Amino acid sequence: MEDMTAFRLVEVSDAEVEAVERRYGPLAAAVRGLVDATIRSNAGDDVVSDALRSITEITARLREDQVDGPAGVNYNATGKAWNWGNAAVGLRNGAAPPMTVMHEPDGSTWAEVVLGAAYEGPPGCAHGGVSALLLDHLMGVTASQMNRVTLTGTLTLRYRNPLPLGRVRLDGRVSGEEGRKVFVEATITGDLGVAIEAEGIFIIPKWSGDFESVVASDAGPA
Amino acid sequence: MEDMTAFRLVEVSDAEVEAVERRYGPLAAAVRGLVDATIRSNAGDDVVSDALRSITEITARLREDQVDGPAGVNYNATGKAWNWGNAAVGLRNGAAPPMTVMHEPDGSTWAEVVLGAAYEGPPGCAHGGVSALLLDHLMGVTASQMNRVTLTGTLTLRYRNPLPLGRVRLDGRVSGEEGRKVFVEATITGDLGVAIEAEGIFIIPKWSGDFESVVASDAGPA
Repeated sequence: MEDMTAFRLVEVSDAEVEAVERRYGPLAAAVRGLVDATIRSNAGDDVVSDALRSITEITARLREDQVDGPAGVNYNATGKAWNWGNAAVGLRNGAAPPMTVMHEPDGSTWAEVVLGAAYEGPPGCAHGGVSALLLDHLMGVTASQMNRVTLTGTLTLRYRNPLPLGRVRLDGRVSGEEGRKVFVEATITGDLGVAIEAEGIFIIPKWSGDFESVVASDAGPA
Repeated sequence: MEDMTAFRLVEVSDAEVEAVERRYGPLAAAVRGLVDATIRSNAGDDVVSDALRSITEITARLREDQVDGPAGVNYNATGKAWNWGNAAVGLRNGAAPPMTVMHEPDGSTWAEVVLGAAYEGPPGCAHGGVSALLLDHLMGVTASQMNRVTLTGTLTLRYRNPLPLGRVRLDGRVSGEEGRKVFVEATITGDLGVAIEAEGIFIIPKWSGDFESVVASDAGPA
């Protein structure tokens, strides 16, 4: 069992992290394409058998040297953070759309995501649960305001309209705070208008102060 | 734009559907392994470059003959249904866990899913939004009772405990009905106990009656 506070501080330079991201970012993007093609292809047995054999070989080679378990959430001494396996935003996650959350000076957030065949629920539309995943993540980021840890407490989603696959937009903002609770509102919008209105209560965990002081002390005067 | 009622009735036999599932099921399983390895590998530039080249070639071959847009939700004249691209349960979706929802005689439902590195949120734990995706889907299936179409209306999720990655269990049941509204309760449980309690209101859309009569009339006396 991982400790929930296991945000790992690791001794690697920004340049090393960026080199890994340059190596694996394009691979994950290609895997996303393969996920899409595996759903949509009409290819016959021969092509699919060849594909299966090649993918099995590639995967075995990649696994010859791999971390045990999930990628985790890592930081280095400059404060750079990476969560490569994250289900919503992981740079190395071929199952993630992935989403990039943008921050406005007033604390509000937004993101644009193109959802393809792998995110379908009702015919031609995004799965309601995929919208929930993206909203949950964007709202958590909104609550964290880039400098504190928050965890989802309660999430309420009101489904107003279908959300056709394709380009969708998310918008979030903090609507209030009360002790360790941060209240966040968000929407996801598609070609038929606002699809889901979401309200969330995010919790600043008690251990987050300890975590911040650990990072701060290791990060030095920067 | 897809019509929301575009649950497609297509003229293929059960045997043909099953042949496609035997062909693509193992491919999607292999793609799931590749997604995991892309997150966890420590391989260097040479291995990753080779992998990228091979995956790009495989994807191009699979795309030589493919459907336009998403896979949709399809039925045949015997009533067999398939939603290969579904984000939660799609057999051909390498980004889906995938989940298989089990039905009990009393109408309750459950599922067991093993969540790996691609479903991470907090370190070592499932992303809260992945839990939302699985809960939303299981609850929709629970509301539909296997013989009617329902869409998510409102979903409320209370996050009680972290959900460590690994084997998780979902349980759902209908708690009430009122006109076109179906009330569903569900939980997702992991090694630290119940992680999320969910309540949902699912809507039986007005067009579902038309849809059922179309399928019935085309399906013949069976």
